[in-house]
Amino acid sequence: MRICFVGESFVNGAGDPECLGWAGRICAQACHLGHDITYYNLGVRGETTTELKERWQREVTYRLPPEHNGRIVFSFGVNDTTIENGKTRVAFETSLENTRNILKIAKQMFPVLMVGTAPVGDLEQNHRIARLSAAFASVCDEIDVPYLDIFTPLQASDVWINEAKANDGAHPRAAGYAALAQLVQNWQPWLSWFT
Amino acid sequence: MRICFVGESFVNGAGDPECLGWAGRICAQACHLGHDITYYNLGVRGETTTELKERWQREVTYRLPPEHNGRIVFSFGVNDTTIENGKTRVAFETSLENTRNILKIAKQMFPVLMVGTAPVGDLEQNHRIARLSAAFASVCDEIDVPYLDIFTPLQASDVWINEAKANDGAHPRAAGYAALAQLVQNWQPWLSWFT
Repeated sequence: MRICFVGESFVNGAGDPECLGWAGRICAQACHLGHDITYYNLGVRGETTTELKERWQREVTYRLPPEHNGRIVFSFGVNDTTIENGKTRVAFETSLENTRNILKIAKQMFPVLMVGTAPVGDLEQNHRIARLSAAFASVCDEIDVPYLDIFTPLQASDVWINEAKANDGAHPRAAGYAALAQLVQNWQPWLSWFT
Repeated sequence: MRICFVGESFVNGAGDPECLGWAGRICAQACHLGHDITYYNLGVRGETTTELKERWQREVTYRLPPEHNGRIVFSFGVNDTTIENGKTRVAFETSLENTRNILKIAKQMFPVLMVGTAPVGDLEQNHRIARLSAAFASVCDEIDVPYLDIFTPLQASDVWINEAKANDGAHPRAAGYAALAQLVQNWQPWLSWFT
């Protein structure tokens, strides 16, 4: 099985001194359970959904030729909610349109999962992220892509946000990524890929 | 510092149940020494230098905007030496031309290192890889890119080749990648990026 993890800095694992992030951790766990996985990490720091929309398909299809068992896990959205010149980098409605566009195309090509948007150290941005995460859940429900809300549990647990605040304000370190990995590796749609 | 590791399956870390490969291991080690690294792994399984030549620049420049401290570590060549329909996938002279082309362009844009070609479990292919590795060393010398010969020490150590043979004939598992990581993290041109 070849899996592309596609999204932004949180997919890349920025801030994690283990250089695994949550994506590397859940693949390593699956490998240790005996599954044969090729792990492609396509997280790019700072990328918005408008930029991702133009990139993901070329990079993913290059890595997932049809003769292999290719799959995609997406996770993105936080950068859309960052304020630049008095407004968010991507308007709320555009984020949803981009997401619908990306997931609809991806779903026709590969099995697809979506892991939600993570909280950051900033309270106001977290309000925007929470709103986006809830709307992403609706989009995914509408087009039948499994969606994991990580915002709610990560905000409640403190590990993620305290590490993010102590680091660069947005990205946690090893314990935060391990906490997120735990959420994904207990998620039924992810587990179902291996049974 | 943002580092793109660019090449084939050995860069991706295929076969490593830790999902780090040698590239992840050397970045994690540097992070544990206190360096702030963003680790981008752009290894793609099965890719030849002819294919890489058409891909690397778009993916790398997308991840290394000029305002960040971007760097590239290349490692490729083994797939060029695979026999298909009675000849190597890429002719020897074309491999060298591709390599010259890739490194010359990359070097104008970023600090660049090249880690050599690894041995596999097959004796005949290893003859072709050894010849290519020696020629890559000359190309790198000619255009002033540091080149690390990994073929000679990995072939001598047994760890790499025994794991590769026991796995899929080409890719080692955790101990092999750890052995290669050790070679790179003791290499002066790599160390000089952090002093």
